Amino acid sequence: MCPYRLVLEHVTSRWGVLVLIELLDRPYRFSELRRAIGRVSEKMLTQTLQTLERDGLVHRDAKPVIPPRVDYSLTDLGREAAQQVRDLALWTERRMADVERARTAYDDAKRA
Amino acid sequence: MCPYRLVLEHVTSRWGVLVLIELLDRPYRFSELRRAIGRVSEKMLTQTLQTLERDGLVHRDAKPVIPPRVDYSLTDLGREAAQQVRDLALWTERRMADVERARTAYDDAKRA
Repeated sequence: MCPYRLVLEHVTSRWGVLVLIELLDRPYRFSELRRAIGRVSEKMLTQTLQTLERDGLVHRDAKPVIPPRVDYSLTDLGREAAQQVRDLALWTERRMADVERARTAYDDAKRA
Repeated sequence: MCPYRLVLEHVTSRWGVLVLIELLDRPYRFSELRRAIGRVSEKMLTQTLQTLERDGLVHRDAKPVIPPRVDYSLTDLGREAAQQVRDLALWTERRMADVERARTAYDDAKRA
């Protein structure tokens, strides 16, 4: 597999997409981000953030305060990725009626 | 899960991406497409094409000839999706050096 295919898989992974889109708005703390995304386990979100951080798309800022505070934000590179991913997500949302129509036609033809 | 998330997963799936990008060039017969993509099993490619056809992104044209001939091409909707997916793939390819640099820095920091 080409190495960039793996990066593409990271940014288009189920949770990767949602993390990138949320962080386009503003930086988030871990627990906030988890609430914003919903339905994601702590483990999966941790793993997703680590992968995106290692790829240079997300910046992790651990503040030396008590209690510890960690903020996640997009890097410039991450912002570029996130904008494209959001555009694709918005396109999918906008075209959903066409997709539904196609599915009904497909299923009807199979049943016929 | 929102219904359009599933469509997004179809167009960004490992084989979905490659099928859409190949079909941007021209229509393909099944065996040609399999060769062009490489490393994909017949079963996986069949499944990917069926999913994309049901979503209304790929058109399957079975010609009534002997031996049977089936061509796959993009619908207008599929072309819109494919162009965005290709742009994202090209972006990933273009930015790979930045990603590699980020990974090295991340791994070095973890080791330190």
